Amino acid sequence: MAAEDEPPNYNRIAGGSLERLGALSDGVFAVAMTLLVLDLRVPAAAAIRDEAALGQALMALAPRLLVFVMSMMTLGIFWIGQQTQLNHLDRADRGLAWLHISFLCVVSLVPFSTALIAEFVTFRIALLVYWANILLLGALLFASWRHARRRALTRSDVTVALACAMERRIVFAQAFYAIGALLCLLDTFWSLGFILLVQLNYVLAPRLPVLRRL
Amino acid sequence: MAAEDEPPNYNRIAGGSLERLGALSDGVFAVAMTLLVLDLRVPAAAAIRDEAALGQALMALAPRLLVFVMSMMTLGIFWIGQQTQLNHLDRADRGLAWLHISFLCVVSLVPFSTALIAEFVTFRIALLVYWANILLLGALLFASWRHARRRALTRSDVTVALACAMERRIVFAQAFYAIGALLCLLDTFWSLGFILLVQLNYVLAPRLPVLRRL
Amino acid sequence: MAAEDEPPNYNRIAGGSLERLGALSDGVFAVAMTLLVLDLRVPAAAAIRDEAALGQALMALAPRLLVFVMSMMTLGIFWIGQQTQLNHLDRADRGLAWLHISFLCVVSLVPFSTALIAEFVTFRIALLVYWANILLLGALLFASWRHARRRALTRSDVTVALACAMERRIVFAQAFYAIGALLCLLDTFWSLGFILLVQLNYVLAPRLPVLRRL
Amino acid sequence: MAAEDEPPNYNRIAGGSLERLGALSDGVFAVAMTLLVLDLRVPAAAAIRDEAALGQALMALAPRLLVFVMSMMTLGIFWIGQQTQLNHLDRADRGLAWLHISFLCVVSLVPFSTALIAEFVTFRIALLVYWANILLLGALLFASWRHARRRALTRSDVTVALACAMERRIVFAQAFYAIGALLCLLDTFWSLGFILLVQLNYVLAPRLPVLRRL
Repeated sequence: MAAEDEPPNYNRIAGGSLERLGALSDGVFAVAMTLLVLDLRVPAAAAIRDEAALGQALMALAPRLLVFVMSMMTLGIFWIGQQTQLNHLDRADRGLAWLHISFLCVVSLVPFSTALIAEFVTFRIALLVYWANILLLGALLFASWRHARRRALTRSDVTVALACAMERRIVFAQAFYAIGALLCLLDTFWSLGFILLVQLNYVLAPRLPVLRRL
Repeated sequence: MAAEDEPPNYNRIAGGSLERLGALSDGVFAVAMTLLVLDLRVPAAAAIRDEAALGQALMALAPRLLVFVMSMMTLGIFWIGQQTQLNHLDRADRGLAWLHISFLCVVSLVPFSTALIAEFVTFRIALLVYWANILLLGALLFASWRHARRRALTRSDVTVALACAMERRIVFAQAFYAIGALLCLLDTFWSLGFILLVQLNYVLAPRLPVLRRL
Repeated sequence: MAAEDEPPNYNRIAGGSLERLGALSDGVFAVAMTLLVLDLRVPAAAAIRDEAALGQALMALAPRLLVFVMSMMTLGIFWIGQQTQLNHLDRADRGLAWLHISFLCVVSLVPFSTALIAEFVTFRIALLVYWANILLLGALLFASWRHARRRALTRSDVTVALACAMERRIVFAQAFYAIGALLCLLDTFWSLGFILLVQLNYVLAPRLPVLRRL
Repeated sequence: MAAEDEPPNYNRIAGGSLERLGALSDGVFAVAMTLLVLDLRVPAAAAIRDEAALGQALMALAPRLLVFVMSMMTLGIFWIGQQTQLNHLDRADRGLAWLHISFLCVVSLVPFSTALIAEFVTFRIALLVYWANILLLGALLFASWRHARRRALTRSDVTVALACAMERRIVFAQAFYAIGALLCLLDTFWSLGFILLVQLNYVLAPRLPVLRRL
């Protein structure tokens, strides 16, 4: 490819891809959110004789439902996080596209790590896999933001203070998730409970002024 | 995050998110609609010897097909309902985004509750789970509309009369669904039949002037 | 809802929905196209000892691959058909939205009827189910176009000649599919072969001037 | 259809379809990316007694995880490739739509060929199927670009040098993939390793000046 041709070529890729990156992301998040529910299996009819048995079988699904809700929150938090970031960008480049494709790759692993922790809720390894998944999501969003700043892809109205605040937000969140993961030394339920609280904080934050700045 | 930075930051999230909320919603509805059909399992070839046997096996799928159609109607009704609501909004905020993510979370449960009622069509618990799913869909759309009004996210041409009409529409519909659910005291088939009629009313309403105002 | 409020309300639904109807449709088609492939199951490793055995197992998938390609063509033909129709519309209304949701409901059945004919390729009932699926797709597109003409939803540059041509195109295509279905009186392979030819004609039509007008 | 009506009709299809082709493509890629993960099956709880056993079961998934990452890269490379191509087009026509639907059809086969190579990693036939999948992706993008140039669908600012560069890029990439496939004469692991290196080159290329021109 002649050197003169490259700039228009790659600029045009970049110009179009913010919008299509968003569309691809919405698709991957939508499918991942809907696949989570496949883990909630309907009890087999053969094993169920009466209402009481069905009630018990559904109650037995409760832990899976909790993990389902947690994973929906995780996906929601990172969907909003990615959207916020893309909204602050002016254009994309090839590197940004690959960072976001890697991010989506990790998003598509959420149904797997959710199924794993739902199946092995008392196993530390399952919890660490689940946490590694969240860590990778945060790390890739962080790397993408840094890349965007370095390549000047951000919008002209993004101040340094705002740019730093967005990085700080990711780092703080990941610090809390890491504390949650460490709690598995005590018990995986402490870990899951703590991670759940952190997530609830991010979902409800705007209404809790004390925690809003984290 | 410095207080001065917050307004531009969150306004811009809000500005972009109506469109991406719509795209995420279309994705989740599309996947949920297509997953419903996975419940229609093709009969195993080993068990089918001739045309008559295949015909019988397909006839045996009829109740599932009916539940499939009902669930498609449910998803269609709430897709149109959500779209109507988003069309009346001018912008979104973080709270609205989370109410709609919760809504999509419940949308993604529809294939589960559909599979449950298809498998246990005579069980009251299965019917109540199905109804609870519909109730949550309505409740979240209602909460989202109330939130939008309180935060002044609605378009400037939304009159108070129109805003109240949209709430009334949800409340009336849910009242009918609740009556349908109550009918399971008699029999789950009465419930399903009544809910089906209510849904048909909402699908065909514009052509039945008497019922149009509900 | 006060009568004065209804017109702005429903007009605005209509205004937004062409775009979101398109997005929902793209989602349903995309998922249906990708689910088709789930019917191509990877042979179980336990049963395969060497390259020759794997080659044979893959050859055994050939009929399924053919049905997969046929169904992709079916979905492609109707995706283009629906898109062409929506491109000729100026706005939507509630009735149009429901006709297209019904259309998408039938689209989501294509993986089911494809799996059925792939499993029971010599059974007439399976072929008739497959054909009924195609027939419903055409019938709903036809009904939607008629509805759009009756309610004056079409663009101002749609002439009567063009409007009739679009209807004729659907009717001709369905006539051919019906002939294909009738051929199952001889043999289901004649039916599939004929339907395949009709579809190839619609895919390649612009290059075969003699058939272009159908 | 009257001859006079055809041009406006098909032009309007074309006008709309670039955008909807992109949306359909994003949907198919999103579902294919998310389905890849279904191949990562959570170990059965019954077979796992302790952390060590779970650790081993997860380690046993490592080869599948590698194939998963490879396939995500394949999908990412071709998603960017298709997007770049569509970004350089001004409008679409029926032929282009069908070439891209065929392309999406092959995209939807990626989860199948990925599952095949993951299951039969030492079998040459599995590797050749995987390579054939990549070859078809490239061939269809190439055919689509040629078609677009012949029918003058490209943007007015696409120079001959740029047009040729885009073709050369596909041909070079496919030449490398073909070399990778040939290496299976030695061993399938050499093939996979070589293909992985080629893919890493395309993902990271902008940072390796020596290889950037390929």
